[in-house]
Amino acid sequence: MALIYTDDEADERLDDFRDLTTADRRPDRPGGRGLVIAEGTVVVRRLLASPYPVRALLGVERRLRELEGDLAGLAVPAYVTSADVMARVVGFHLNRGVLAVADRAPRSTPEQVLEGARVVAVLEGVGDHENLGALFRNAAALGVDGVLLGPGCADPLYRRSVRVSMGNVLRVPFAPLPDWPAGLDLLRSGGFRVAALTPRPDAVDLCELSGPAEAEGDRVALLFGSEGHGLSDGALAAADLAVRIPMAGGVDSLNVATAAAVAFYEMGRRG
Amino acid sequence: MALIYTDDEADERLDDFRDLTTADRRPDRPGGRGLVIAEGTVVVRRLLASPYPVRALLGVERRLRELEGDLAGLAVPAYVTSADVMARVVGFHLNRGVLAVADRAPRSTPEQVLEGARVVAVLEGVGDHENLGALFRNAAALGVDGVLLGPGCADPLYRRSVRVSMGNVLRVPFAPLPDWPAGLDLLRSGGFRVAALTPRPDAVDLCELSGPAEAEGDRVALLFGSEGHGLSDGALAAADLAVRIPMAGGVDSLNVATAAAVAFYEMGRRG
Repeated sequence: MALIYTDDEADERLDDFRDLTTADRRPDRPGGRGLVIAEGTVVVRRLLASPYPVRALLGVERRLRELEGDLAGLAVPAYVTSADVMARVVGFHLNRGVLAVADRAPRSTPEQVLEGARVVAVLEGVGDHENLGALFRNAAALGVDGVLLGPGCADPLYRRSVRVSMGNVLRVPFAPLPDWPAGLDLLRSGGFRVAALTPRPDAVDLCELSGPAEAEGDRVALLFGSEGHGLSDGALAAADLAVRIPMAGGVDSLNVATAAAVAFYEMGRRG
Repeated sequence: MALIYTDDEADERLDDFRDLTTADRRPDRPGGRGLVIAEGTVVVRRLLASPYPVRALLGVERRLRELEGDLAGLAVPAYVTSADVMARVVGFHLNRGVLAVADRAPRSTPEQVLEGARVVAVLEGVGDHENLGALFRNAAALGVDGVLLGPGCADPLYRRSVRVSMGNVLRVPFAPLPDWPAGLDLLRSGGFRVAALTPRPDAVDLCELSGPAEAEGDRVALLFGSEGHGLSDGALAAADLAVRIPMAGGVDSLNVATAAAVAFYEMGRRG
């Protein structure tokens, strides 16, 4: 790794990092360039370990030195500048002191995500980038093997999702699931039981999913809807069963990422 | 309920609602006035149902009309104005269109919080208002009976905690627990087992807390530390046992509110 020093905020080599808060940096918007952006040493490290081709790093010297081991042998330019110049380039003050950008890798297919998986999450309408990021963080922590994205989901590779996930969107495999909800047949034909999480009172208790009656090698797909509206009727009808997390009376449902953490944990109890 | 119309942003009767983002509104800061502030109809409704003496409401007419049933018979002034005037009074644009302010009620004691409780959460160093609010939301949803606050915790009644909790800080009893960690003896003498949540590898699996060996009427206190540093050595030593949530390899621990949700859920499995 060679550090490249610059104190020119107009340096064209820093263009990948410019004006990160503007809408055109959102890959899901027209004109969005779709670069993957990692902030902070923990997440940058995960980006370096991911399949995404890293284009460059930008940071203060102290943070880049922390990453020297991770960068050894990589032909990735690492630009060193001051916190002030960095703030003017990216458009805001960045506490974490280091950024990396990468190109997108070719998308996985649902079949690739399901291969070898025992527990996956399938999302419908999870449109909030922070909720989506938090869900990926919980999936990684609690041993979920992949995530499939139905209609209305946010982009896991948007900067805010990457950050809230602590970089786990770069590690947990995901793919869009087209042809909704008929595409859920792909799961069933792969031997997954499709369990829809819902507050409906006729749903069975979540703990029945991990009960002693269940086979050890059982594959399960957990289906989550948006926090506001829950799953669509079509998605509920396409599931094999409906399960609910027992709630105390009169209380709003949990945040979708939190509900997912509880369900992921329950699945882990089987092991 | 009588609606009081005003379009004067300097109206002194609106002073309780003025400049909500300034630091002096934080009750934990010198000069902070310590009013309890609720935003949006759901949370305002919870404030009206709480023991906190409500001083006034401010909102757009449509939102205040939604609250007419809750306000019936209450001698609380409800000021109606436009979204623009409201934004200029509070200092930012408020999506939710209605606010209420209340005085603080006398603090509960730990003994009051523990009375009749089966499961409580005890926090050390949870200093982030949003994490704290989310933890209260999860406590309410998953049937936890109360929260005790050790040193370094944020104020549950700060505006941002109230909002993120969806108003559940106004429903779940809480109290400061002085004399840390010796104060934990209060729990033990009340028949609580004190279980410290920690990622330490020598901790037992969380599910052992709800195993068949446990008595039905068992009282449990779940002890959580800050996301960054975890529990102090003193707190860990003062606990009866250490439990951990099984995690997949190489992943950061869960957010403290999410870890708490998982533990609260596990406790609910006993019922």
